Amino acid sequence: MIDLRSDTLTRPTEAMRAAMAAAEVGDDVYGEDPTVNALEERVAALFGKEAAVFTPTGSLANVLAVASVVEPGQEVLCEASAHIARAELGAHGAVTGVTMRTWRHPSGAPDHEQIADMLAPDMGPYFVATAAISVENTHNFAGGTVTDIEDLRRLRSFADEAGVAVHVDGARLWNAHVATSTPLSAYGEVADVLAVCLSKGLGAPVGSLMVGTAEAVATARVRRKRLGGGMRQVGILAAAGLHALDHHVERLAEDHAHARLLAEALGVDPATCPTNIVVAQRPDAPAFVARAAEAGVRISAVGPRTVRAVTHLDVSRAQAEKAAGVLASL
Amino acid sequence: MIDLRSDTLTRPTEAMRAAMAAAEVGDDVYGEDPTVNALEERVAALFGKEAAVFTPTGSLANVLAVASVVEPGQEVLCEASAHIARAELGAHGAVTGVTMRTWRHPSGAPDHEQIADMLAPDMGPYFVATAAISVENTHNFAGGTVTDIEDLRRLRSFADEAGVAVHVDGARLWNAHVATSTPLSAYGEVADVLAVCLSKGLGAPVGSLMVGTAEAVATARVRRKRLGGGMRQVGILAAAGLHALDHHVERLAEDHAHARLLAEALGVDPATCPTNIVVAQRPDAPAFVARAAEAGVRISAVGPRTVRAVTHLDVSRAQAEKAAGVLASL
Amino acid sequence: MIDLRSDTLTRPTEAMRAAMAAAEVGDDVYGEDPTVNALEERVAALFGKEAAVFTPTGSLANVLAVASVVEPGQEVLCEASAHIARAELGAHGAVTGVTMRTWRHPSGAPDHEQIADMLAPDMGPYFVATAAISVENTHNFAGGTVTDIEDLRRLRSFADEAGVAVHVDGARLWNAHVATSTPLSAYGEVADVLAVCLSKGLGAPVGSLMVGTAEAVATARVRRKRLGGGMRQVGILAAAGLHALDHHVERLAEDHAHARLLAEALGVDPATCPTNIVVAQRPDAPAFVARAAEAGVRISAVGPRTVRAVTHLDVSRAQAEKAAGVLASL
Amino acid sequence: MIDLRSDTLTRPTEAMRAAMAAAEVGDDVYGEDPTVNALEERVAALFGKEAAVFTPTGSLANVLAVASVVEPGQEVLCEASAHIARAELGAHGAVTGVTMRTWRHPSGAPDHEQIADMLAPDMGPYFVATAAISVENTHNFAGGTVTDIEDLRRLRSFADEAGVAVHVDGARLWNAHVATSTPLSAYGEVADVLAVCLSKGLGAPVGSLMVGTAEAVATARVRRKRLGGGMRQVGILAAAGLHALDHHVERLAEDHAHARLLAEALGVDPATCPTNIVVAQRPDAPAFVARAAEAGVRISAVGPRTVRAVTHLDVSRAQAEKAAGVLASL
Repeated sequence: MIDLRSDTLTRPTEAMRAAMAAAEVGDDVYGEDPTVNALEERVAALFGKEAAVFTPTGSLANVLAVASVVEPGQEVLCEASAHIARAELGAHGAVTGVTMRTWRHPSGAPDHEQIADMLAPDMGPYFVATAAISVENTHNFAGGTVTDIEDLRRLRSFADEAGVAVHVDGARLWNAHVATSTPLSAYGEVADVLAVCLSKGLGAPVGSLMVGTAEAVATARVRRKRLGGGMRQVGILAAAGLHALDHHVERLAEDHAHARLLAEALGVDPATCPTNIVVAQRPDAPAFVARAAEAGVRISAVGPRTVRAVTHLDVSRAQAEKAAGVLASL
Repeated sequence: MIDLRSDTLTRPTEAMRAAMAAAEVGDDVYGEDPTVNALEERVAALFGKEAAVFTPTGSLANVLAVASVVEPGQEVLCEASAHIARAELGAHGAVTGVTMRTWRHPSGAPDHEQIADMLAPDMGPYFVATAAISVENTHNFAGGTVTDIEDLRRLRSFADEAGVAVHVDGARLWNAHVATSTPLSAYGEVADVLAVCLSKGLGAPVGSLMVGTAEAVATARVRRKRLGGGMRQVGILAAAGLHALDHHVERLAEDHAHARLLAEALGVDPATCPTNIVVAQRPDAPAFVARAAEAGVRISAVGPRTVRAVTHLDVSRAQAEKAAGVLASL
Repeated sequence: MIDLRSDTLTRPTEAMRAAMAAAEVGDDVYGEDPTVNALEERVAALFGKEAAVFTPTGSLANVLAVASVVEPGQEVLCEASAHIARAELGAHGAVTGVTMRTWRHPSGAPDHEQIADMLAPDMGPYFVATAAISVENTHNFAGGTVTDIEDLRRLRSFADEAGVAVHVDGARLWNAHVATSTPLSAYGEVADVLAVCLSKGLGAPVGSLMVGTAEAVATARVRRKRLGGGMRQVGILAAAGLHALDHHVERLAEDHAHARLLAEALGVDPATCPTNIVVAQRPDAPAFVARAAEAGVRISAVGPRTVRAVTHLDVSRAQAEKAAGVLASL
Repeated sequence: MIDLRSDTLTRPTEAMRAAMAAAEVGDDVYGEDPTVNALEERVAALFGKEAAVFTPTGSLANVLAVASVVEPGQEVLCEASAHIARAELGAHGAVTGVTMRTWRHPSGAPDHEQIADMLAPDMGPYFVATAAISVENTHNFAGGTVTDIEDLRRLRSFADEAGVAVHVDGARLWNAHVATSTPLSAYGEVADVLAVCLSKGLGAPVGSLMVGTAEAVATARVRRKRLGGGMRQVGILAAAGLHALDHHVERLAEDHAHARLLAEALGVDPATCPTNIVVAQRPDAPAFVARAAEAGVRISAVGPRTVRAVTHLDVSRAQAEKAAGVLASL
């Protein structure tokens, strides 16, 4: 069975397991885990930010990130199929109490005209104040699409004029970085706060980080504990993250190449699949998924008429080619 | 000064004051206020629903209504400038914990294609489930626009197929009723739950109602008390509502005629202003509002480039004509 | 039927109805209701505070008051049978997100030793910070008991040293004021924030106020609107409050005298019933309540073994005497 | 430096690290991690319950456990220094919206008389309903005290009669089990839901479980994901938990013996320190903690006048003796 349901499925390599087994650890609730501290400092530095905080999941990193720039009763604007809107079980409303309005764009991109039209940061005490604009990059449900750094810079200028924050959901920002050769620090420059994941393309078993100002991260540490995410000797997991940063970033280009094979097989223009995710329309998504599974390829339905295949560390070139053959034949 | 900022500004008439002064009352927290009970039964019957509950504000009626069909962590879909999204200070997220996605439509209407594309009531445990579609009718910030009953019936069918609820924010549903001669019961048929206001076009000083099933209303009474909206001898206010239903519904046609005068004055096609609200674009909305005020006409800015004028019970034909003259001259 | 279930049952007098009918009103959401403004200023001045805000219920006044001094995740300490703990449907947790710990005292009083032992305003980032101590005065479920002003002053000193706030739930503070001749301003001095009701002993049909600093009240106005409590021409109700302040404060002494009659009848030491509430223990409270009702006297069960009788504006001397006779005979 | 601040400080042993390095893993969000599944099944079986769910922290296990038996707006009763009240940053109110009242007991025990007096599961729609009683066993801040199983059985009977649930915060239930030889299944019998930790006395780096009915656990999995606690290849951590269950339960008796040495050194009756925690009163807790640190022994202040020393896997007999000497000398 070739499993293309998600890049969250990757299992740690032997080398990564060895790194975890050897990790120096301490109680991170007390701030005393040297491996966690090293990871947090390294990731903050990569993005040119003051600080970062490790979280058990990308969802929690996003919840902390959005909460750091949007107060309860204020709103964040995002694209209608963004992960924060669709796939975090409503945490931003149910847990943090922020509210959301959405624009719609086929590739999940920030649509400047729509955003300008919706934005209302300061309409007085009777209106919900827009506090942040969120961009997911790469955009999962739109098919691993990349928002160009120039687009993000325009958004940054626009947000600065309006006095609102920019949140980048960068669960797969590493893929955008590799696909476009944009420096990670350039993403840090356009965002007030970012969330990045180690457990997707990078292949760590668990772990994400929220990255931002020292003050926002200090507050996020308290919120993380309140939400039950303040773990103890978590350097075990942070070691996997450090290993992944050393060894699994540049190789994402392989996943991207594999995804293009799948795109062709699914009849999708490879130019619209710049990274490791292929989203295709099928009249009956669950039925198509079932048939693929019977043929030895697992993909997933992410909408009633939308299927998704994702390449990752545990899918070799040979497997990608074989899966492409299977999918093309259905 | 002619005050067109909102139809919430109406002051009770002498006859309404007399009705309030003579109201029979009891402790409504114990369900013992006969005037409240009469109002709730009457409004439920008007819409062909089982029950209704009186609330101090339209915002609370909407919060209770949405909460009756959307659980925390689920989502309600609505138009991006809907009152529940823009003008209730984020209560649906901050208080109830529901989440929201929005489609965009210039007249605030339910866009069936966009809704069909966004709707996802049952994508499994990793996704936010769509639980309801909300329609504001008339739509305040779009300019008192009316959604045709046939459109609502199509939405109802569509929602039934998908297994999601329909919420009608009917703060000004009385205006839609008068403008289109649609029976109130027809609106009740298309909605699982409605919110209607007495304090806008109808001219009562305070009061709204949530209208729905007996079960939903019973739960809403508990939530109302939790949110601090369970008042005591509130038959004083309910009496104003009953008076308004007797005397102030049909006369809304006058407000609509006055609004058409203002639309022409503001260079807006009167055909797009079917009820008592006129929304117009101006390059600098706050500045335009200030100049109108200097000339004796108060209107409001509801967006950086959007002004709004509203006719109501306290604006006579002569005042509407005078205001039109002033606004045309600016 | 003589109704002693609660002092919330009072119906407005003819004079109060006349005051409401004649009230000058405006849209209070815009801050333009002169009668509301007058009431808010008057009540703030009575307690020597900067500002006050009108609310539809005492529950909402308490929710806004506690939220003004306790952030989500922080705690308020109160007596275990306090109204904020028992009778507001968990709003402080469910709506505001504050947490609560309780001490236990038979008369509902602030037990300084227990409070000192529980208080923990600054134990670092792993502990819930105590942000406020709440005292209900008079204390409803303990039997209208009064906390002496000297006790409150000691609590104030203690709170100042610890750096925590004091909230006074003064739904019936008017009764304490009349029973002890303590000036209202003395209560204002010991509290950072107060909630007071017009709809209990004072006999207004609806209405309470939160009283505190100008800044706290400004924030509370936004929260009030978010919770659906921002009403429109609510001067109708505020007029009843102003009338009550003019005519119904000193007469509370009559209610207190009537309550002592009931206390004797129920076998309770009148010295423990200083105001208008009598709480008595009965082996089966609901059964006792049912028998009293059969005999023409309505009282309530506020615990499995606790009954409560409350005197108020609508209970005359003759009725109190008659009810005492009935209750003594059961 | 001998570190007695907490038993959360333990670092994984070499054998535990090897178990983690060899763990078979899968994506636990999809329910496909065999090691997690094995741990969850094993722990459920130990307590005679239907199911269990792995969480990143004990706080999250408690949040999910309490939420499984208490709805927003309902209340849980607990002792005033319980971990759920003091040390979870108010999550039960701020995140779940449940409310809390507390009894006070020097050893943290369930005080049946106080509980009976406070309990009010069904006082009608105006009162907060008691939905659960929570007992922490062993009780951290009271000094690792044990509630006898017979006491818990009485509480169970009492709760059954009243129709409320029992939650056991069993972060250190393993210690109670070893100290009293009570079978783990006996604890499962008295509780509707339990939370147990692997990262305290058992020495795993990360991990706790909520244990209860299959239905409650299924709902908890959704809530866990919403709160950002749904991790991926978390079998890495579950393997440490399985190893700890195999090797680190019975040895807790050593920690208990070490704690008795510390109790004597701190002038505390060892009979009051049945497990691995010693709590002592000192006039200035932070100052005492600082002096101990200077002398090479780290303990913690858990109240302004309360210090705490905790023995654990990383403290040898020799270290315990040395620490006792230091503490006795201060």
